This record gives sequence, structure tokens and C-alpha cells, in this order.
Amino acid sequence: MDKLKRYEDWKFRMSAYDMALSIINIDKMTVAPAAGASYRDPRTAYLAGESFAIMTDPDMIPVLDAIVDDPEVDEDTRKEAATYAREIRKIQAVPKEEYVAFEEATNASYDAWLEAKNASDYSIFEPHLREMVERRRKLIEYRESTLPVYDQLLDDYEPGTSIEFYDQFFEVLKERLVPLIHRVVQAEPIEDSFLYQSFPVNEQKAWTTEVLLPYLGFAPSWGYQNETEHPFTSWTCENDCRTTTKYLEDNVISSIFSTIHEVGHAWYEHNIDPRYDGAILSTGVSSGMHESQSRFCENYLGRSLPFWQANYPSLQACFPSQLAGIPIEQFVQAVNSSRPSLIRTEADELTYPLHILIRYELEKGLFDGSIPFEQLESAWNELYERYLGVIVPNSRSGILQDVHWSDASFGYFPTYALGSAFAAQFYHQMRSDLDVDVALQEGRYTDCIDWLKTHVQQYGARYQADEIMKMATGEPFRPEYYLDYLEEKYSSLYHL
Amino acid sequence: MDKLKRYEDWKFRMSAYDMALSIINIDKMTVAPAAGASYRDPRTAYLAGESFAIMTDPDMIPVLDAIVDDPEVDEDTRKEAATYAREIRKIQAVPKEEYVAFEEATNASYDAWLEAKNASDYSIFEPHLREMVERRRKLIEYRESTLPVYDQLLDDYEPGTSIEFYDQFFEVLKERLVPLIHRVVQAEPIEDSFLYQSFPVNEQKAWTTEVLLPYLGFAPSWGYQNETEHPFTSWTCENDCRTTTKYLEDNVISSIFSTIHEVGHAWYEHNIDPRYDGAILSTGVSSGMHESQSRFCENYLGRSLPFWQANYPSLQACFPSQLAGIPIEQFVQAVNSSRPSLIRTEADELTYPLHILIRYELEKGLFDGSIPFEQLESAWNELYERYLGVIVPNSRSGILQDVHWSDASFGYFPTYALGSAFAAQFYHQMRSDLDVDVALQEGRYTDCIDWLKTHVQQYGARYQADEIMKMATGEPFRPEYYLDYLEEKYSSLYHL
Repeated sequence: MDKLKRYEDWKFRMSAYDMALSIINIDKMTVAPAAGASYRDPRTAYLAGESFAIMTDPDMIPVLDAIVDDPEVDEDTRKEAATYAREIRKIQAVPKEEYVAFEEATNASYDAWLEAKNASDYSIFEPHLREMVERRRKLIEYRESTLPVYDQLLDDYEPGTSIEFYDQFFEVLKERLVPLIHRVVQAEPIEDSFLYQSFPVNEQKAWTTEVLLPYLGFAPSWGYQNETEHPFTSWTCENDCRTTTKYLEDNVISSIFSTIHEVGHAWYEHNIDPRYDGAILSTGVSSGMHESQSRFCENYLGRSLPFWQANYPSLQACFPSQLAGIPIEQFVQAVNSSRPSLIRTEADELTYPLHILIRYELEKGLFDGSIPFEQLESAWNELYERYLGVIVPNSRSGILQDVHWSDASFGYFPTYALGSAFAAQFYHQMRSDLDVDVALQEGRYTDCIDWLKTHVQQYGARYQADEIMKMATGEPFRPEYYLDYLEEKYSSLYHL
Repeated sequence: MDKLKRYEDWKFRMSAYDMALSIINIDKMTVAPAAGASYRDPRTAYLAGESFAIMTDPDMIPVLDAIVDDPEVDEDTRKEAATYAREIRKIQAVPKEEYVAFEEATNASYDAWLEAKNASDYSIFEPHLREMVERRRKLIEYRESTLPVYDQLLDDYEPGTSIEFYDQFFEVLKERLVPLIHRVVQAEPIEDSFLYQSFPVNEQKAWTTEVLLPYLGFAPSWGYQNETEHPFTSWTCENDCRTTTKYLEDNVISSIFSTIHEVGHAWYEHNIDPRYDGAILSTGVSSGMHESQSRFCENYLGRSLPFWQANYPSLQACFPSQLAGIPIEQFVQAVNSSRPSLIRTEADELTYPLHILIRYELEKGLFDGSIPFEQLESAWNELYERYLGVIVPNSRSGILQDVHWSDASFGYFPTYALGSAFAAQFYHQMRSDLDVDVALQEGRYTDCIDWLKTHVQQYGARYQADEIMKMATGEPFRPEYYLDYLEEKYSSLYHL
């Protein structure tokens, strides 16, 4: 069984670099002094290159193939080796120097994006965006596939998807959501201005640390929450999951829902069977599936009345002058109110998919050449006006709001909408298996997490998203669950 | 000049691993979830092994020697290469697996020390301490030197020192300090109980962040302060220096002086000429010299009246109910009061060297076998009673208080006392070059730092400690400056 020993050693070495890169990255995003970046970044890129060199070691392909073909080897290991082989074939033709240069350019691009966002000046970021698109395209073109680059990117984040798939998906969404949003806009607005008073950040932090995180089950032994401009989650293993959030003084719910969202991602990674730790199956199976878990927690659980029956009294006690006169029903209505807006991460559940649709159309246009870089910002602004009826006042609240393009994560955005739709189907099933409302009311939030663990999370990337969907809900993915849910929820909320 | 290209490439690769290890370490010490350690630690040790393998690459010794011998190469580079060659010769005979095993054992030992300290139970830590001593001894014994192991350890941290050197140094100290401390103990005590009221930690943090760190010139662009059980400083390059502190609710000065101390270390690393960045000369030349800078800041600057003339009003304003009635003179007397005590990091300037003497004698005994492990704790307690007249009530306040032994830093402690003595000689010189008091009063703390930069810090490890001392003060190191300073200061303070 010499091949298995080689395989284990190879995985271990790669996982050491991946761990280092993950820690260096979260350090950079949270606390690392900015002026040190010019020293750290080239060294980080070098280490990424070492990981890449191990991953693409040509001697390993025959070892992986031998493991896949060996009926004596257990099924999990064969699946894992096959997954490695598939991913390696995507990158093995890329010269290491080019990969390292890509990593370096990504670091520079992130720094430029941050600077551009702070200055609200797209022109600072534009050359980097151009470079990111070109470099990403070039990396993809090393593959044998003849599919359009953007199709391949979509498939990378969500195996099995394509432009055709998402065109259809968004068509179905548009058809039912655009008229629904139109009716909501015409309806009597929900009063929610009390959410946007002054809520001192220190007290928000204290409530999050002392009440919310414990309620969510996010234990310090395996998780840590920090603060960043753009909240995210990263991890090195099941017992090391980091989230970030951002506190806004004039918006008490922003950090709360970003916390619930990111901790949802963290739960997914924490709940993956530890036997996959340190290897390629030890991660959410796809970006859409990951987002399904985080948006499930944020919206399906976190915006529900039972969730707040457990948590609203302590929030009120923390902010008596702001919330004492607001009954829980009014608070819950307010956190669900819908209003076309500028910022994706602050968007309500109903208009959110249109923010995604806009990014999808822009990315498609960037990659098929129909939208030139110099027209990207005006295209962005135009789509916001067309789909959401809002005027973008500046780059910071427009094209520069998201981090994703700065690190070349093209093709990621659509998975947010897909994940939301996956979540609806899980929610439908969970409610028939479990009294979700009582669990939330009684502080047993983790009962819901346990359902997700059993039916989705434990598998990591052992099964495909569509296999997991079928095992968990007994049928293939159907966006109708999502649309039914939104229609029912918002019709009732706005008395349509 | 092919050899210089190989040399640059070799240094770059090593520096990438060292950067990663530094970040992984500070991450572990500050925020990394504890349960992830069993995943992270073996991978960290693997990466340390990769760095070790590059460092000890046998092909490099001839390259280094060729650079050292080449008169065409600039002096700095030749000195740097010679320093590498000297350090490599210390470790090149160590098998890589043994080095990696040492790193792994160190991680486990740190975790055990933390657990033992929290439980105040030395028996949890004892087997690890035993292992650390044995492993450290074995690593040293691979060298060609025939000197006793502890002599070599002392020389590692402070080149040129030995048991003989420190025996003499501590003898001189004991001779003058023990009677001085005795007289202080007999004198009228200084009232300082007001320092140990309740000072809410959040307000301490706010004052440190908004007043103290800016006064010290510790800028967010190149530095970051976090919190840990045991304060320390680490760095990856001139523009990435991290410090930690620890806030105690019932002791307002603990975090203040630990902050000034650690930022003193950070300034040293920040001020090293950036042309040494990423290589072996880019660090303080010795542990004693490092401690001289940090203890200079903490004691010679931080405990002075002019320092507090700039900072006391804002501290009073931050804690009006605790400090409003305390005049500045009384406050400064209190932060300098001397009283034999249990905890080294909380000790006053006068009794501090005896805490170090105790550790020095114990380490010497551990390595020459005169103190068996099972008697170490009683030896510790006995020495505290003999030299300081205090009874150690538990392991947490005794043998488990310091982190150093958990990571096998044997031989480090004596450099604290030596550094304090170096600092006195620098202080004597600085006062004749610069009006220190006016600078501190007027908020120009960094004028003092600039003096240290010019005379000490910029050189990194380019010159030996004794060369730096001579260049900066015009004479070799003389402990009398230190003893004179302490005698004068405490005689005046206690009206002896």
C-alpha cells in the first residue's frame, strides 16, 4: 500500500501550506499592519506557489489514478483521490510562475480595491480589475475544455452549472419576482426607521458576544469572530473556523444578520465529518451549497418571529432608549421590510436576488466582451436603475461595494441567489421533520443546525450538490420552493 | 555573480517560511481557537522543518563562504553571509526529523503550560519541562563545541556571555542591590494602594488606544496591539510589528507599563535599516540589547515625572473617581514604589533583577543536574523566600508564571537583567545629548526613540552588542551605571 502512504504524505504537505495561507490571509484581512503588505505579499505568493507545485506534481497523477482504480481502497478515499485528480487536471498546464504572478496580482488588486473604495474612485481599481479578468481568463484557457471561460468559472464554483443554467434560473426568478417587488413598492411601507437610530458600537459588540454568538452555538473553542470592512468566513479545519462582521453605529441589524450569516458558513465547515480534515473533501461541496447554509441561518431562521422571541428581550434591554417602545412584532416586521436599495449585503431577502442578477449580467458581459471595462460602471448604474429603480450616487455605494472582483472571484455571485433557493427547499423539508419554531423559541437553535449537519453538512464535498439535495429533500432542486416562499412571505407581510 | 543570485533566492525562500511561522504563531497566541491546535501544530512544525531544511542546505555553505571571502562584495552582505554561516554551523548536524519533533513538542508544551497555569498545578507541566530541557540539550549537543550546554545557551541569546560572565555580573548586582533593597524594605512605605482600585478594562483599553499608543508613536500602519495572557512582541518586517498586552481590572499600571515595554521592542524592529529586511541581520543583535530598548522605554522613560506630565491629566480624566484626588507627584512615586513581590512582570525596577537572578540559578541547576526536576518547584519557592522574603502561595504565582520554559527558552531570562543594565548606560549618554525631560513633557517621546534609532536600533544585528555599546556611549559596558542609577533613584525616593 505504498501508494496510500505517498498519498497521505502529499496531502499532509499541501494541507500545511493551505493552513498557512489561510491564516496569513485572515491575518491580512483583520489585523496585519498595512505598510507590511509589500513585504508579506510576495512571500505569501511564493508559499502559494509551493502549494501549487505540490498539488500539480506530475508524479502524483498516476498515484491518484491507481487509488481511484483500486477496488481494495475504501470508497471515501477513492472519491477523494478522484476529486483531486479532477481539480489537478484543471490547473496542471499552468506554469508555476504564472500562478505565483496571479497570486501577487491578486494581493495588489485587493489593496487597490480597498483604496479605491475608501476614495470612492473606480479609476483606481479599474486597471486591476482589467488585469484580474485577463489573468483569470488566461489561467482558464490552459485547460483542455473548449467551453467559454465564464461557463467554466460558473462550473468551478457550482459544479454542473453553466450560462445556460443560470440564464434559465434567473429568467424564472425575474418572471415572478419583478412583479412581486413592484407590488411591494406600491404597498404601504413598513415603519423601520427605529432600526437606524444611534446604537453605540461597543454595546452592539457586547450583545453579539454575550447573547447572539452563544445562542448561535458559536463556541470559542472552535470559532473566533473579528471585524473587517467586508464580512467573511475562513477556516483551517473543523475546529478552527473564523468569521468577521462589521458594526455600523446607525444600523443595529447590519452586524446581527452578517453575524448569523457568517456563523452559518462556519457551522458548515465545523460540522463536516472530521475524517475528511486536511483534504479536498473537507469543505462545502459548492459555493451555492455554502451560501444555502449561511442564508438559511440568516433569513429562514434569523428573520423569524421565534428567533426573536428568544433574543429580542435581551436586545431591548441592551438598547432601552432605542427599542423599549417597539413591540417584537413590529421589530420582526421591520427586519423583513423590503425596499429597493444600493448595497447588496444590506439588501432585504426579496430584492437581494436582483442585486445578484445585475452582477451576473455584468460578469457575463465582461467575459464575452459585450461590456468594455470603461463602460462597466455606467452599465452597473444603469442596471441598478432598471431593475431596482435606484440611482447610484457614487462608486463606493456602487461598483466598488463588493470585494469579489478584487480577487478574481468571477462566477461566484450567482451562487448567492442559487444558495438562497436551495435553502428554501431545505427549509420546507426541515419544517416537516422538526418543530423549528419551538426550537428557536426555546433557545435550541442548534437543533436546526443539527438537521443541517445530518442532511447536508457532514458530507463536505463527498457528494455533489444535487445528490445532497435529493438525499435531504427526496427530490431534485426546484426553484419554485424559493419563489413560493418569497411570494407567501411578502404577500402576507405587505397585505398584498 | 551567480552566487549572489543564489544567495538572494535562498534568503527569500527562508524568509517566506519565517514570515508564515511568525504569523501562525501570533495567531495561535492571540485568536486561534484552541481546539484547532491539534490540526495546526503538526503542520506548523512541518513548515518549520521546511525552513530548517532550506537553512541547512549543505550546498549553501560554500556559497556563503565564497561571499564572505569575496572582497568585491559589499561589507554588509559579507557580514550577513558570515552571520548565516555561523548560525548554520550551530544546527547543521541536527537531523530534520529531530528538529520537527522539537517544534511539535514545543507546541504541546506551551499548551500544557497554559493548562497548568490555569489550574495552578505544576505537575501538569513538569513532564513537558523535562522534555523541553532534554530536547534542547540534545539539539545543542549536536554542535562541535565542548562548552557546557548552558554556556552555549547563554551565548545564543547574548553572544559573548557565559556562566562565568553572568556569575560575575549577578555577584556585582547582589553586592549592592541586596543591602539597598533591605534599606528600602525598612523605610517608610510609599502609599500606592490607589493604583489597585477597580479600573474598568474597557476604559483602560480606550485610554491606551487613544492616548498612550499615539504618544508612544506606535502607528497602525506598521504596528498592531492585541491581548494575551503573557505580553510579547513579534514581527515579520520593519513595517509589521505586533505587540500584546494584558489588562487587569484591579491594577491600572500593569497594562500601561507592559504596553510601553512591548512597544519599545517593536520600535527596535521597526527602526532597523530596511535594507536588512528579510534576512538575518534584520533583528535586534541580542536578547539583552532587545531588553535594553524595551526596559529603557518602560522604566527610564515611562516611570519618569516628565512622561506623566504629558500623560497624567488624560489618565485622570479617564478615571476621575479613582485618580482625581491624587497629585501627579504622588502618582509617579507610586509607580516607582518598591516592594518584594511574587510576579516578575509586575515587579518594580529595584527588585526586578532578583527575580532574574532566581531564574538564572534555577536554570543553571537544571542544566548541571544539581537541581532535579522534582525539586524545582521547592527550589523556586525557597529562593523567593531567601532573596525576596516572600512566600509563594501557589504554582500559578510561582514557577508557572512565565511562558519562557514552555518553549525551551532557557538562557533567555538573564538577558532581562543585562538589558536593564545596558539601558542605564544608554540613558546616561542620552541625557548628555538630548533634553530628555523636555522632550517627554512636550509630547516628543519619539525624540528619545530617534536617539535610540541613531545609536542602537538602525544597525539591527550588523554590529555586536559590545560594538554598539562603544559606538553609542564611547566606552565598554559597565554595570556601575545601572547600580548608580538604582541607588540614586531609590535613595532619593525613600529618603535613605
